[in-house]
Amino acid sequence: MRSHYCGDLSEAHIDQEVTLCGWVNRRRDHGGVIFIDLRDREGLIQLVFDPEDSPENFRHAEQVRSEYVLQVKGRVRHRPEGTENPDLKTGKIEVLSQELVLLNASETPPFPVDEKLEVSEEVRLRYRYIDLRRPESLQRLRFRSEIIRQLRKFLDERGFLDIDTPVLTKSTPEGARDFLVPSRTHPGQFFALPQSPQLFKQLLMIAGVDRYYQMVRCFRDEDLRADRQPEFTQLDIETSFLHEDEFMGLMEEMIKELFATVLEVPLHTPFIRMPYAEALACFGLDKPDLRIPLRLVEVGDLMKMVEFKVFAEPAQDRDGRVAALRLPGGGKLSRKEIDDYTKFVAIYGAKGLAYIKVVERRRGREGLQSPILKFLPDEVIGAILDRTGAEDGDVIFFGADKASIVNEALGALREKLGHDHGLVEHGWRPLWVIDFPMFEWDETSSRWSALHHPFTSPKEEDLPLLEQDPGACRSRAYDLVLNGTEVGGGSMRIFRSQVQTQVFRLLGIGDEEAREKFGFLLDALKYGCPPHGGIAFGLDRLVMLMTGSASIREVIAFPKTQTATCPLTGAPGPVAEAQLRELGIRARKSTPEKG
Amino acid sequence: MRSHYCGDLSEAHIDQEVTLCGWVNRRRDHGGVIFIDLRDREGLIQLVFDPEDSPENFRHAEQVRSEYVLQVKGRVRHRPEGTENPDLKTGKIEVLSQELVLLNASETPPFPVDEKLEVSEEVRLRYRYIDLRRPESLQRLRFRSEIIRQLRKFLDERGFLDIDTPVLTKSTPEGARDFLVPSRTHPGQFFALPQSPQLFKQLLMIAGVDRYYQMVRCFRDEDLRADRQPEFTQLDIETSFLHEDEFMGLMEEMIKELFATVLEVPLHTPFIRMPYAEALACFGLDKPDLRIPLRLVEVGDLMKMVEFKVFAEPAQDRDGRVAALRLPGGGKLSRKEIDDYTKFVAIYGAKGLAYIKVVERRRGREGLQSPILKFLPDEVIGAILDRTGAEDGDVIFFGADKASIVNEALGALREKLGHDHGLVEHGWRPLWVIDFPMFEWDETSSRWSALHHPFTSPKEEDLPLLEQDPGACRSRAYDLVLNGTEVGGGSMRIFRSQVQTQVFRLLGIGDEEAREKFGFLLDALKYGCPPHGGIAFGLDRLVMLMTGSASIREVIAFPKTQTATCPLTGAPGPVAEAQLRELGIRARKSTPEKG
Repeated sequence: MRSHYCGDLSEAHIDQEVTLCGWVNRRRDHGGVIFIDLRDREGLIQLVFDPEDSPENFRHAEQVRSEYVLQVKGRVRHRPEGTENPDLKTGKIEVLSQELVLLNASETPPFPVDEKLEVSEEVRLRYRYIDLRRPESLQRLRFRSEIIRQLRKFLDERGFLDIDTPVLTKSTPEGARDFLVPSRTHPGQFFALPQSPQLFKQLLMIAGVDRYYQMVRCFRDEDLRADRQPEFTQLDIETSFLHEDEFMGLMEEMIKELFATVLEVPLHTPFIRMPYAEALACFGLDKPDLRIPLRLVEVGDLMKMVEFKVFAEPAQDRDGRVAALRLPGGGKLSRKEIDDYTKFVAIYGAKGLAYIKVVERRRGREGLQSPILKFLPDEVIGAILDRTGAEDGDVIFFGADKASIVNEALGALREKLGHDHGLVEHGWRPLWVIDFPMFEWDETSSRWSALHHPFTSPKEEDLPLLEQDPGACRSRAYDLVLNGTEVGGGSMRIFRSQVQTQVFRLLGIGDEEAREKFGFLLDALKYGCPPHGGIAFGLDRLVMLMTGSASIREVIAFPKTQTATCPLTGAPGPVAEAQLRELGIRARKSTPEKG
Repeated sequence: MRSHYCGDLSEAHIDQEVTLCGWVNRRRDHGGVIFIDLRDREGLIQLVFDPEDSPENFRHAEQVRSEYVLQVKGRVRHRPEGTENPDLKTGKIEVLSQELVLLNASETPPFPVDEKLEVSEEVRLRYRYIDLRRPESLQRLRFRSEIIRQLRKFLDERGFLDIDTPVLTKSTPEGARDFLVPSRTHPGQFFALPQSPQLFKQLLMIAGVDRYYQMVRCFRDEDLRADRQPEFTQLDIETSFLHEDEFMGLMEEMIKELFATVLEVPLHTPFIRMPYAEALACFGLDKPDLRIPLRLVEVGDLMKMVEFKVFAEPAQDRDGRVAALRLPGGGKLSRKEIDDYTKFVAIYGAKGLAYIKVVERRRGREGLQSPILKFLPDEVIGAILDRTGAEDGDVIFFGADKASIVNEALGALREKLGHDHGLVEHGWRPLWVIDFPMFEWDETSSRWSALHHPFTSPKEEDLPLLEQDPGACRSRAYDLVLNGTEVGGGSMRIFRSQVQTQVFRLLGIGDEEAREKFGFLLDALKYGCPPHGGIAFGLDRLVMLMTGSASIREVIAFPKTQTATCPLTGAPGPVAEAQLRELGIRARKSTPEKG
């Protein structure tokens, strides 16, 4: 039906007869002539309808409104001098229309496609098919498709097999709530939608597949935070007989090639590999944004003996931490600004935000401003200034509390200061965070929980710690962090059944429960399981970062809202009572039942 | 951890030091030396452990049993003359082992990997990770991955965007039962798993995506027949601004390229395009297997006036049919064989199976054998022999009944005869079936139902028939049939909202119901919907055909059984009462409730 895409036309096509199909982006009548910008997915082209050239054709063009669908035959020509549009790829040419076929009309769309009018997300999602006509929206989907293509290409070339795993499966324990699907043929029983294909990919390794990948939909029935979707896409990868260093190296090459081909950005490999403990010490977080040059500095050792209890007590506490964070040029922060940062860190549980402003360092104590100066001896002040590298005009903030609170509060403050004060460097700063602890102590349930998941292998040299000191046992897990966002997480897996059993027990999963939930994995581990490990990348998040989008909803064709609904189709919706009966379930009454 | 795959070694590696990882396929002790066949996904290699060479190494090798996981260093050498194994790719070489690391042990597997022992499907699926170690099982998954890769490559190169659509969505009306997912955040409401992304891909066309594809999981909660799965994978494609001829041509090229690259089989394009009416007339089915050279022949016009009522009545009936089917060489069929075929056609509702054996045609009536000869005049017999091209030694079968029964019975008989008598030609015989009727009359509900789906466009020239004679109205649908299996089905879609409304009404979908179920589509059609159409290929079935597998379960990594369960994970399974409460549902009691 067409010879070219509108947006692909160029001066190379001058004098050619072309047939185009597309949407009316805009119609203008000027000097007795009608100009129509016709749009397809490649761009715009200006059509000209001249009544002297073809009166009938012109009359058809008069009927045309925005978003009508047209097929147009015509001849490409230069625009008259002085009427070129340098903002448009096809701005030097136009098509003198010789024949117009109106393929379909359009009502006035709920919002204009050709203007950058702010429209509420609810309305945009409800009319997603209009929203996607906006070039920047469609561009994101194209970009996503291209990213997926490049990732697949890399993996295909290296012998990875693309294998799909079930969607209707058994509940897997990734720590989130499952979506359930009632079974009609087995009333009272349920499938679960996978939170990840973790166990299936491990089984594929046990089967000898050796290298597996899949772009796979995963499901978590969580209360949605800003950047979550109930269904999301993961690039899931698993390999056998590779050490983590080799595996991380391979994944680095993949990301490097992706950025080189899709963004034309060179990334330097190997990526930084930062132990978890160092990430917390320097950045307070296990996903540091390295574009921000600020760093936390340890000062606990200086504070053990000071009179100031707010510092001395956490400094003496085994679980406490006292840390400093210098903001260059922060000496000019107003009282109000400091108050606002104090409120900000309070969100993370910090009870206050002590600070020292450095006015003129060479004057010693006299050259500083701070409500806490009087509590600190000269040598402590001197050491703080030295360690933080303070210069005139800076401010130094302090966190002193349980280490977890200090880390969260100063970690968040560091990123906020970075953004507020324009300190975020340009570019891409990937790193691997490694050497995670296997377990963290959960105060609520008074037991160990897995920092990654229960199939993550301990480090070989830390195996004895499983019995002696689980909290000190490090795992073979690794997270890929990019500009402060975790884009991938993985590990070498447990491949010996007795280690798996030991870890289950430590996590409070009794042998009976383990057998019931993971019996098939425990069985499989007994029949010759190879050393193996892998990773899962959050594809939506990666695409979001690479496209500079504000939300993952922008890079998903038909996303759900933050209340997990689809304004377009109206899902979820009511179903017929007969359907429920067939499935062997009934809806509970929404009000509490009375005896 | 390794330098090569086992199966990749060849004489090119003679004298090289290699490190291999894999599974013990078999251990043999012979002449004081241990031979181990080590297996990885690329194949087998023979390892040699000589006690004189390395006693410690040899002692390790003595511990080794089938399916143990090893890492072995050694040197590649020629096998001694006379000990080569021509059945093995690596049969001319072996690896003299210098170092053996036992990576993992294995219990005795539930069935041997290295023997072609028949094992029940239930056991194979329960231990799928062992089953997949069998080279032919793994090979199917590799082949599937390769097919997917080639299809994607073709589409990527032609500007198709890979876009994923929701899994948690609204019930779509593909005619099958939906799987439902209760919404926790909206108690009493349900998501449905998609039977296909039909409406989403149409919306993407309305959005201007122009060319879309997706390898997509689809779900149907059907009672499972031999070759169905509750979840299956579809290659889903949609395009805008293409006529069906162009579109079918593009798809042909895709299939042609797939067969050329993956099977090294040349297919001839263009594929045959056969109207639905012709398919029924000649083959009785809308998915004829063209490898079988038998054809149905119309004889109804000859039978209108014969005395034999079994033939005359259907011949006079507007809905009846009388057809003949010649089996070359079938004259030697025994009474028992003919009885068996009679029973076979009875499955399809045929009340009998008349036949004429051609012994010696030149002798006329005398040269024939048949219980029905006496009912037929000479000129009718002569015409039958002429039309069927009967030769001495043939048998001619007859079907006479309602056309639908004759078609089903003779269509099935034709394929059975073809297989029973070795008439199935080698090779691949693709064809398009086109010109389907839009509707078929459903006797049960006394209304029209859609032969494809309600979004299929009528032929432009048949539009007036929507009102005048819906049964005569043909659609713009097309099915791709390969060796008797429908591997793809699609159509040009309705793109004008008033046609869509008209079709809904014909199908007995009232305006209110249409708005409730498809309101978003009807809305979208109003805002500039382009002419568009597409297709969906059953990927599992295509892979099954191309790998010559007996069932689609063979080409799915973790299939469900025919009772829709997974013997490996035990899905579906029971869930905690608390989970159901959170979802706002409860299980019905399995026994009828008592007042």
